[in-house]
Amino acid sequence: MKIAQFQMHVYEEKKKNLRQLEDYMKRIEQEQVDMIALGEMFNCPYVTQKFPDYAEKEGTESWEICSALAKQYHVYLSAGSMPEKDEAGRIYNTAYIFDRKGKQIAKHRKAHLFDIDIEGGQYFKESDTLTAGDSCTVFETEFGKMGLCICYDLRFPELSRMMVEQGARVIFVPAAFNMTTGPAHWELLFRSRALDNQCFVVGTSDARDESAEYVSWGHSLLVSPWGNIIGEMDEKEGYMIHEIDLKYADKVRRELPLLNARRKDIYREELHRR
Amino acid sequence: MKIAQFQMHVYEEKKKNLRQLEDYMKRIEQEQVDMIALGEMFNCPYVTQKFPDYAEKEGTESWEICSALAKQYHVYLSAGSMPEKDEAGRIYNTAYIFDRKGKQIAKHRKAHLFDIDIEGGQYFKESDTLTAGDSCTVFETEFGKMGLCICYDLRFPELSRMMVEQGARVIFVPAAFNMTTGPAHWELLFRSRALDNQCFVVGTSDARDESAEYVSWGHSLLVSPWGNIIGEMDEKEGYMIHEIDLKYADKVRRELPLLNARRKDIYREELHRR
Repeated sequence: MKIAQFQMHVYEEKKKNLRQLEDYMKRIEQEQVDMIALGEMFNCPYVTQKFPDYAEKEGTESWEICSALAKQYHVYLSAGSMPEKDEAGRIYNTAYIFDRKGKQIAKHRKAHLFDIDIEGGQYFKESDTLTAGDSCTVFETEFGKMGLCICYDLRFPELSRMMVEQGARVIFVPAAFNMTTGPAHWELLFRSRALDNQCFVVGTSDARDESAEYVSWGHSLLVSPWGNIIGEMDEKEGYMIHEIDLKYADKVRRELPLLNARRKDIYREELHRR
Repeated sequence: MKIAQFQMHVYEEKKKNLRQLEDYMKRIEQEQVDMIALGEMFNCPYVTQKFPDYAEKEGTESWEICSALAKQYHVYLSAGSMPEKDEAGRIYNTAYIFDRKGKQIAKHRKAHLFDIDIEGGQYFKESDTLTAGDSCTVFETEFGKMGLCICYDLRFPELSRMMVEQGARVIFVPAAFNMTTGPAHWELLFRSRALDNQCFVVGTSDARDESAEYVSWGHSLLVSPWGNIIGEMDEKEGYMIHEIDLKYADKVRRELPLLNARRKDIYREELHRR
């Protein structure tokens, strides 16, 4: 399974972000990748006040273009995340997955909103404009089951655990850490979720833009079920492509049988709903 | 709160290990530490077949010496772990905590036994001779609540989570990783448990002995609630002393409110019994 991660620049103009996506897809067409992953809020500046203006209903505009591109290039597309608006006017940070025919096969609304206030560091309050989702998201592909969550969701070991419990051997995470949490926690979090759950974790960020209000850390990365970093970018825009073998997750789970060794008679972990 | 971690050599002769402990305590007497932590199986070579021979009932021999030393030096003692035998002859990997008066205030039997078989790496099967415990262990001190688990237990995010859920702001982990898992996962695991749970984690290993059947990685470490390594040793025997402020855990929890942001309406995590 060949995965491309696009660490793209985020422009003010929504359509420019979507044209950029098409350009990137064209550029790597020869590589014949199976899946493409984008960053969090790839079509919209990461500014809470702007989310309502950029928000679209499922099935419209950006969604349509992503679906069409997945179909045109015959590739799975983890379309990062984008602001979504529902019938009632509520706004979500939403990630869609399209299959090779452009059909939506997964949708995850960020379940843990990013509210942070570090002394001398980052302040951000997503809950000012966003509503949280309430699902643990797993989807089926020709390569097996995979999980999907967004950035801050990864901070909560429970959610990854529940995805793996439902069969995920790869977790896709559109994300955008910042200049405080990036250097401190980015690698640590992605590596530990991969290691604890013995699965691949695909973290895709937007490129760093020093002039933006929220400065992304960048450093898109791909981690193995042994907790090793298979590939990691720097902060600049670009892409990387890697081939992974999902059977390696099975091998790690066999040699170091962590998942089976859980003491479910001591602690219980379960989903309330999906 | 001042913590000393003793990364001691493990001798074949049990009494020699206990005399060594007394020597170390004498050496740092001037430092007036509040708590001393030892490594996993500090009084017994880490060889499954030897555990039954070295095993003692609670309240006897090694236990008595540890209790007496805690009282004599007026210090909390996390007495690493040692093989314990119960009335029925079952053997456990058991960690005791003594208070400044030598009173046992906590006891944890390793709940996840270490069975591993890595291709070209480490093989070990604790369950050959050991029985697993079945508790999540938290204890009260004059500094607040603390948790206790042993080595492989730390691999399971659920257990640390449950300790923190019960109020722990520090987790003590007598441990002994090996030359396969040590370089791959030691720092990653301790740092991620500290970060996810926003607590201090005190990992104390035995010193490396290249001639031993099971070669310990060493590298005793102390991690902050922000996931930073406050101090880490190399593989040689010795000790390190650090002062920590448990209020820092509260500060991190306030600035990045992870524990309160858990979505308990999506996933449920709870203890079956203690």
